[in-house]
Amino acid sequence: MEIRDLLIIGGGVAGLSAGIYAARGKADVLLVEKGSPGSQAATTDSIENYPGFPDGVDGPGLIEKMKRQAMRFGLRILTDTVKSVDLRDRVFVAELNDRCIAARSVIVATGANPRKLGVKGENTLAGVSYCATCDGALFEGAKVAVVGGGDAAVEEALYLTRFASKVYIIHRRDTLRAAAVISKRALENGRIEIVWNTVVKEIEGKEVVDGLVVQNVATGMISKIAVEGLFIYVGTVPNSEVVKRLVNVNDQGYIITDEDMRTSIPGIFAAGDVRRKSLRQVVTAASDGAVAAVSAEKYLMALTPG
Amino acid sequence: MEIRDLLIIGGGVAGLSAGIYAARGKADVLLVEKGSPGSQAATTDSIENYPGFPDGVDGPGLIEKMKRQAMRFGLRILTDTVKSVDLRDRVFVAELNDRCIAARSVIVATGANPRKLGVKGENTLAGVSYCATCDGALFEGAKVAVVGGGDAAVEEALYLTRFASKVYIIHRRDTLRAAAVISKRALENGRIEIVWNTVVKEIEGKEVVDGLVVQNVATGMISKIAVEGLFIYVGTVPNSEVVKRLVNVNDQGYIITDEDMRTSIPGIFAAGDVRRKSLRQVVTAASDGAVAAVSAEKYLMALTPG
Repeated sequence: MEIRDLLIIGGGVAGLSAGIYAARGKADVLLVEKGSPGSQAATTDSIENYPGFPDGVDGPGLIEKMKRQAMRFGLRILTDTVKSVDLRDRVFVAELNDRCIAARSVIVATGANPRKLGVKGENTLAGVSYCATCDGALFEGAKVAVVGGGDAAVEEALYLTRFASKVYIIHRRDTLRAAAVISKRALENGRIEIVWNTVVKEIEGKEVVDGLVVQNVATGMISKIAVEGLFIYVGTVPNSEVVKRLVNVNDQGYIITDEDMRTSIPGIFAAGDVRRKSLRQVVTAASDGAVAAVSAEKYLMALTPG
Repeated sequence: MEIRDLLIIGGGVAGLSAGIYAARGKADVLLVEKGSPGSQAATTDSIENYPGFPDGVDGPGLIEKMKRQAMRFGLRILTDTVKSVDLRDRVFVAELNDRCIAARSVIVATGANPRKLGVKGENTLAGVSYCATCDGALFEGAKVAVVGGGDAAVEEALYLTRFASKVYIIHRRDTLRAAAVISKRALENGRIEIVWNTVVKEIEGKEVVDGLVVQNVATGMISKIAVEGLFIYVGTVPNSEVVKRLVNVNDQGYIITDEDMRTSIPGIFAAGDVRRKSLRQVVTAASDGAVAAVSAEKYLMALTPG
């Protein structure tokens, strides 16, 4: 079996950025992407905060630009699914649908997906978001709701008060899990109303969100809340299965790396949303990819030949 | 004195990216830039590896786009020089040319500059570079030289052998300081020739580099080397003076941060080339800026009021 120097798994922002750097550096590199547009950026209508695009850029367009850039430097992209990665005799072997690829180093850039509520309207209506930093500015003067009670939910609810006229926090319990100082701010904020012991049963609207059907879990009572936007913060699921047994991951399954994207196994690097980090944005994923490619390059350079 | 929430020092990629994020998040933010185009990106002709620009982008153009993007979100930019930053009664006070600005948090994005050789031709000729990752691909089939003998110099010389037909390493001593495995690779590489005990006295060429005048420091003998490109790796100088007494810096003066861009002093963040990091690129600076802005946001949110 031919052994490549570098295998990049994932064709989202982090993977393509790694591909741009590796291919421009003439590495012996192959990128495998699963083909369906699963990447978070690729499914985003308008990205306003990726530096360099003053008027914003649509997600599929940005991904297309990065792909063109990588292919211009000669990156080979294979459409297939990586099912697992194993370590055999100091070489990594990736099992695809009906073949295997061997590589001396691997960059895992498989992304993460927000955990969904699994209610009607969630996948079809505009105005449902999983990222206030991304989409909050689109709700100037509107009423919105946040689902969740952890740090992310409460911090983002506070952030949303800069735009929205009213922010409901819908939380299934009767206390917030967020840090005390943040929770106190939310409780004291006149624009925030916390709806305790409550879950969302359905998101209503024609094309755009116009309200929520909610249920009080203590009393069973059903009611409605009128909002134009819903921000869901009930956790995220990293796509780290392919290397979960090889490298260290945290409680939520995110791959643990250092600042140079090195995982617990020399030769395996992780970049973008799949790794443990504090800010998941297009620009941080692009940066991770570049760093991972250069770290892989240095790793390969220092490998004892043979 | 009016107290702002956030002061960003520096109008390069990291500062503008922080400005985009902070202004879009409606922070009470002011960016101070010194006006002259000192930023590394702003003085780069063509940036080929910033993800999203398949045909490359000129440095001044990219900076202009980021500035427009930040101003679209309402960022205020002041042209002035920050001479120092002090901490007084839990508020940071920046001293400018003839006024002071007080702020609850500060992002230092003042960049770094490569240390120059200080020889004739260095500032005027095309083909002089301080970054092989940036410019190596432009020297396909050419003869080039690297000045320096540390890790960066030798790693970049090895990297350059992918493009250049011949790479001279010009080093003032008779041994390399770089790590053993890297040095060994360089010594064994047929495309690399190490010119020991030698310093560059002058860079020759009309508009583009075509040769070097070098001197052997042991014998004093002067000779010439024909090259089309010169990569200078004799260190870099971070512009960290304004906060050097406040925050921890490393031996070279780079500001030490964690992955969330927090320095040793709560409320002061550093982003981009001025901080200690392994890869200094436009995309990593942009990412740092975004992370610093969000970290500053969280810091301000958790500040006890009053």
